[in-house]
Amino acid sequence: MFDSVEKLKEYVRHASVSADPQFKAGMVGAQQFVSGLLKEIGFAVEVVPTALHPVIVAKSGDNPQWPHVLIYGHYDVQPPDPLGKWATPPFEPTIKGERIYGRGTADNKGPLMVHIAAVARLLEKNPRLPLRLTFVVEGEEEIGSKNFKTFLMANKDKLRGDFVYFSDTGIPSPDQMVITVGLRGMLAFEVEFTGPNSDLHSGMNGGGLMNPLQALAELCATLHTPDGRVNIPGFYDAVVEPEPWEREQLKKLGLKERDYADFLGIKEFHAPPGYTPFEAIRFLPTLEFNGFSGGYQGEGTKTVIPSKANVKITCRLVSNQTPGNVKDAVFNTIRTRCPKGVTLLIKEQHHAMPYVVIPPDRSNTPKAQSPALAKCFRAVDRAATEVFGKPPIYLREGGSVGLIADLKDVLGIDAVMLGLFLPEDNLHAPNESFHLGVMKRGIETSERVLAELARG
Amino acid sequence: MFDSVEKLKEYVRHASVSADPQFKAGMVGAQQFVSGLLKEIGFAVEVVPTALHPVIVAKSGDNPQWPHVLIYGHYDVQPPDPLGKWATPPFEPTIKGERIYGRGTADNKGPLMVHIAAVARLLEKNPRLPLRLTFVVEGEEEIGSKNFKTFLMANKDKLRGDFVYFSDTGIPSPDQMVITVGLRGMLAFEVEFTGPNSDLHSGMNGGGLMNPLQALAELCATLHTPDGRVNIPGFYDAVVEPEPWEREQLKKLGLKERDYADFLGIKEFHAPPGYTPFEAIRFLPTLEFNGFSGGYQGEGTKTVIPSKANVKITCRLVSNQTPGNVKDAVFNTIRTRCPKGVTLLIKEQHHAMPYVVIPPDRSNTPKAQSPALAKCFRAVDRAATEVFGKPPIYLREGGSVGLIADLKDVLGIDAVMLGLFLPEDNLHAPNESFHLGVMKRGIETSERVLAELARG
Repeated sequence: MFDSVEKLKEYVRHASVSADPQFKAGMVGAQQFVSGLLKEIGFAVEVVPTALHPVIVAKSGDNPQWPHVLIYGHYDVQPPDPLGKWATPPFEPTIKGERIYGRGTADNKGPLMVHIAAVARLLEKNPRLPLRLTFVVEGEEEIGSKNFKTFLMANKDKLRGDFVYFSDTGIPSPDQMVITVGLRGMLAFEVEFTGPNSDLHSGMNGGGLMNPLQALAELCATLHTPDGRVNIPGFYDAVVEPEPWEREQLKKLGLKERDYADFLGIKEFHAPPGYTPFEAIRFLPTLEFNGFSGGYQGEGTKTVIPSKANVKITCRLVSNQTPGNVKDAVFNTIRTRCPKGVTLLIKEQHHAMPYVVIPPDRSNTPKAQSPALAKCFRAVDRAATEVFGKPPIYLREGGSVGLIADLKDVLGIDAVMLGLFLPEDNLHAPNESFHLGVMKRGIETSERVLAELARG
Repeated sequence: MFDSVEKLKEYVRHASVSADPQFKAGMVGAQQFVSGLLKEIGFAVEVVPTALHPVIVAKSGDNPQWPHVLIYGHYDVQPPDPLGKWATPPFEPTIKGERIYGRGTADNKGPLMVHIAAVARLLEKNPRLPLRLTFVVEGEEEIGSKNFKTFLMANKDKLRGDFVYFSDTGIPSPDQMVITVGLRGMLAFEVEFTGPNSDLHSGMNGGGLMNPLQALAELCATLHTPDGRVNIPGFYDAVVEPEPWEREQLKKLGLKERDYADFLGIKEFHAPPGYTPFEAIRFLPTLEFNGFSGGYQGEGTKTVIPSKANVKITCRLVSNQTPGNVKDAVFNTIRTRCPKGVTLLIKEQHHAMPYVVIPPDRSNTPKAQSPALAKCFRAVDRAATEVFGKPPIYLREGGSVGLIADLKDVLGIDAVMLGLFLPEDNLHAPNESFHLGVMKRGIETSERVLAELARG
């Protein structure tokens, strides 16, 4: 019998931080762990090199008449800092109550384990399951899947599935399945401000020149309007309003603003007019500061005017924005608004297209879609309703999984996304965890979905 | 024969960073080094404990009829970071060309060594020099001399000098002495912005709430006007305009804006209207950002909305501002302007009064001053003119030495400040150094000054 929790613990111990070369051993360990596990349950595994971290491609089922399901996952995780805020070590998985704690438990090691466990169970019962399954597990999702599109283009023939099926999205509570039908895109970059060529004494020079930190603050302060919108000409031009059924589905989530504000520990939300905070997170683009640095950050004081200041920025994008158009608008605006006396360097990082799929039987203006995709959506609806006790909700998510747009673009296939992580899971933050009850229901749902697809 | 350069090298090797408890051994080492050196040249040394780092009080000469000169210095230095920018190790003094490199060479170990060497020479020639000398060397100047005023009050009787004489200020070039007749005061504090109670995933929450980094930028951007003034109601109320002779003296410095901009590596200055940058640095108060922190600062990207953001701020003050009045204006303004959705915590750090003294024979509206002080000013004028080849310039400085105001307040005495460091010395920055030619002239000047005072 496949012990999914024990396997997940083993998996989490590999500190697979893709962003930081120091974690190279953890990256290799996690890749080898997943490869080994898939071999164990009967898959033919290939480790496909990329310019950075390799992609695992694992196949089972060889009859070209059988439906072909791609299952996506990623074996890399976010950096664990700030380390001091973890109650237990990030790479020593720890079970407390209904939860397993550790970096990557929810994003994406637990959810991937859900589908591996479901497949393991099905193949245990029926090694000749009439289904072609291809796991595609990459190692660069947390740094923007930079090499994934190249990988897809080079390996198209191995990846001609009917659709991609996976879990890297969220649900509001352990008893409510959410099928994600949209993801925000992404434009990530940083801006470096340079003033004097060396750090200066603020007494001997203060008052005579522009401080790069002041320039950073003054420029960044222009990028939003007081009502919470992004203050960049043209930024919203391509944005498509959500359909009425989308707002209705979102209401079914039953989120209460006061409760969610209390959960976050904030006094009030700050969403643009005409949108609840929950709508703003899903239906609107953003420009968000992810890090400021510059000057003295240690204990006590240091009376310095730093030579440089730096801001890390990500824009989240929605249909029909593109990273290219948004980049032009944002970079031009930033260059135009740069205060005098400092120079700017914009360093482009990764980007991702936004994505939307309309599930069958939902939209008043439905678009044509493949029968295989529609069949999977209906199988998921049925299985989730049975296992979770109520129908799933169909929602766009605020996060970004740019490879979904890449899969659509390169392979021409859509995605069926089963949410599995909870708001309390602390993704990308200290004390990340995964709910063991959700894990169990996830495995049961996925097993039913794949069984139904196998029945043809 | 006292070898001042060798002694300075020994002194610099003690990594006496007062701001960081990790450098405890360096603090003790530097204190013991100075104490030992002063004993060697004939002083009675007392190490007076304070709440943090002790003060060295060293006395020579016991006839109450003799003039009594206090000589001030500090044995602590600034933190050495960013370490990566040093060409040679900060605590391994290295001579290259005319300069000695190392943290503290210019601020304040070299200049203190100048006066110790001058005294050593005089006492070598005449052990019964008719002068009372008291060295007062503290260990907390770089962290705001927090315990110095308490020390002064508790040790008043030992410190009843005619004036205080020392070097912790600057000159424009190796052949131009500057006597500092004013220093800016200081108000140091930091502001912490708190949003959500934990770092959040910017995809799952971005667009719904105020990001503490955004709040920091928006608040900081309100604190200056576009023309470079501080934008806080009442901030300039107490500021006294410089006297015409002060602007004239400053012009004698012969500073060229273009040259100084090139030296700093900036394209243009940013001084308030009506003031050259050189005037703004000396005659106007500032509000300067010394450090921003918050969010992800490592390699690559991390899509986080941080729980907290922090800015370190120092205001430089001029006559007749007081840290108390400025604090009220600044803190109230910051509290009033705090963006909604985050909470503020202002953490007060150290502060210092601004200081001005009018040298004899300068002002059209002279104030009464003690004959001993006037005598010292005239002795310095004569000695510096002879040794440096032209008359000294009398200037206010942009830096802060708050203890000067404390000495005035507690002991009722003024200060005679001989400038010794150059703009190229990189105070508070990587690759700090001290000019050996200036060191030699400084020793000769100081020896002549003390000899003249001893002649009565």
